[in-house]
Amino acid sequence: MEKRIVLLPGDGIGKEIIYSAKKVLQVIAERFNHSFGFIEKQIGGSAIDEFNTPLPKETLEACQRADAVLLGAVGGPKWDSLPAEIRPERGLLKIRKELGLFANLRPVKGFSALIHASPLKEEIIKDSDLLIVRELTGGLYFGQPSERRNNGEAVVDTLYYEKNEIERIVEKAFQFAQMRKKRLTSVDKANVLESSKMWREIVNEKSKNYPDVTVEHMYVDAASMKLITNPSSFDVIVTENMFGDILSDEASVLTGSLGMLPSASTRSDSFGLYEPVHGSAPDIAGKGVANPLGMILSAALMLRYSFGLDKEATIIEEAVNETLIEGYHTPDLQIENGKIVTTDEVTSIIADKV
Amino acid sequence: MEKRIVLLPGDGIGKEIIYSAKKVLQVIAERFNHSFGFIEKQIGGSAIDEFNTPLPKETLEACQRADAVLLGAVGGPKWDSLPAEIRPERGLLKIRKELGLFANLRPVKGFSALIHASPLKEEIIKDSDLLIVRELTGGLYFGQPSERRNNGEAVVDTLYYEKNEIERIVEKAFQFAQMRKKRLTSVDKANVLESSKMWREIVNEKSKNYPDVTVEHMYVDAASMKLITNPSSFDVIVTENMFGDILSDEASVLTGSLGMLPSASTRSDSFGLYEPVHGSAPDIAGKGVANPLGMILSAALMLRYSFGLDKEATIIEEAVNETLIEGYHTPDLQIENGKIVTTDEVTSIIADKV
Ligand SMILES: CC(C)[C@H](C(=O)O)[C@@H](O)C(=O)O
Ligand SMILES: CC(C)[C@H](C(=O)O)[C@@H](O)C(=O)O
Repeated sequence: MEKRIVLLPGDGIGKEIIYSAKKVLQVIAERFNHSFGFIEKQIGGSAIDEFNTPLPKETLEACQRADAVLLGAVGGPKWDSLPAEIRPERGLLKIRKELGLFANLRPVKGFSALIHASPLKEEIIKDSDLLIVRELTGGLYFGQPSERRNNGEAVVDTLYYEKNEIERIVEKAFQFAQMRKKRLTSVDKANVLESSKMWREIVNEKSKNYPDVTVEHMYVDAASMKLITNPSSFDVIVTENMFGDILSDEASVLTGSLGMLPSASTRSDSFGLYEPVHGSAPDIAGKGVANPLGMILSAALMLRYSFGLDKEATIIEEAVNETLIEGYHTPDLQIENGKIVTTDEVTSIIADKV
Repeated sequence: MEKRIVLLPGDGIGKEIIYSAKKVLQVIAERFNHSFGFIEKQIGGSAIDEFNTPLPKETLEACQRADAVLLGAVGGPKWDSLPAEIRPERGLLKIRKELGLFANLRPVKGFSALIHASPLKEEIIKDSDLLIVRELTGGLYFGQPSERRNNGEAVVDTLYYEKNEIERIVEKAFQFAQMRKKRLTSVDKANVLESSKMWREIVNEKSKNYPDVTVEHMYVDAASMKLITNPSSFDVIVTENMFGDILSDEASVLTGSLGMLPSASTRSDSFGLYEPVHGSAPDIAGKGVANPLGMILSAALMLRYSFGLDKEATIIEEAVNETLIEGYHTPDLQIENGKIVTTDEVTSIIADKV
């Protein structure tokens, strides 16, 4: 199989961990006789420094020509005082929108070697295995108008959805539920918002095409509670952009494995952008101690979702799991009787297993 | 002191626990020589059944003439299929708006006798004591337009704030921070939303008047994580309506004391509406087993915030705490070697201590 992959290191530790993913992918390519071509481009703060924009045209074009994109992380205090329009995060919002990546997939599952690091009691978190499907290119984060009114005396943002935008994300979520435990929780605020009422209608309508999936509706405030009190009751959660932003970050800290969580931003074809859930961690950047596991697992998701290479993805995931069970980890983690290693060392251990 | 209090039992267990609060208040009145006059009115589902609207005019008028309002809870499956405009929750939204109750106060603090019931590990939750100040009458839940577009092919909701609406809630929050640990966390999504940018500017501007308060800005997604990983790092959190809805419910389950949490909806004068955080629990309604502690503690908040009766409020809070330490509790709670009692029994025990 021949694939073109764009690497976007971004900022901070993104510039280190991206090469961990690349190395593991190269080993996979060799072992299974695939050909992965890599092109590296700038995004976020590094792109601002060089090109004065967080998403240069040549970065976007390279992504448009590729089969998939791996992203490290963007942002850092250096660019925090810039006007919002040219801040690193804008690069992220823009690349999602321009590439039409409407479906953000956030699997949350604990690693047994790390479950002790969960803020939750073990009996509550232990069997949790959920997938949050977040709408990523519509809603309040993109709607117009978004502006000051009356000489700055008022302000407005707009939560806008077209029916087909809701339909396609809801369908994605049903499809994932079918491949998993066949339970879908749709999260909204239908007791208050018109957009949530439409969302709920569409979920009910679409559910007719997926009779094997059990659907439940939940208000976003109730969902934010239940994620904590009973996370293992969820299978697939589908929700709009902003609710998904809040709930998926909330969910990401439950297992104690934030540094290990991957994410995928996808659309209707096989193209996707893959990135770890954690940030650019500027405080530890450049020291060779960043945890590359979330990045490596994002590469595994890319193999599975964009290239259909399920076996290869599973091999990477198992290698990561074994490495943790053997006790090798970067300094951000605590494992009893474990051995602290560098970014490069843990990458090599995983690559050797692959 | 002479005060007029409107009692709004609402639905479900609201119709039981409201009398627990009344009883405790009557004992306080007698002991401290206050005169509390009570008027009872309908709201929510019960009001729909009787008057065809969740907020009858006479209920609203009685509240307008009163010094404070105690509310039980609204809602239940019986009214879930009604159109949104006449559902029980509309009564709640409308009474807040009509009475101008723009500041929702949600203190979150665990009871030592119940801390074992927290989903979080004890070392994480133990010293938590935070107050969420939620803007309650603006933003996405009230903004216009909120409607279908293009023959139902699109939908829009509007997040609208006037500057003075943000200013007054931010000032409230600063004032509470001054009375507490002098730390204010303002939660927004200023990297994306124009309304959040304005919110952040106003917080920075107002902070000049409160030099003794340390201000920190946090994105809502980060706040949803930190509430779980480090809840004791917060003192006062201030945020807009929808973020506050999600975060305050998230925070309410952290201590394992959801049934015990009170809330206050206030404005610039001393008037306020007080209600427990929990819902109407239709499944256990009418059985005499509902937990009245959140309701009783809401009455204590009323004494403190609306009537300035700090001593009386503290006496109620201590009576509740002692009752739990002695092990008396309704069946929803678990206390080792505790004794399960009914709603009326636990109310009497508290009243006797008061
Ligand atoms: C940086 C920000 C715009 C972004 C978002 O909210 O979409 C981030 O929080 C995320 O969740 O990927
Ligand atoms: C019932 C609903 C409209 C209400 C809200 O979201 O304001 C409730 O969730 C609350 O938090 O008091």
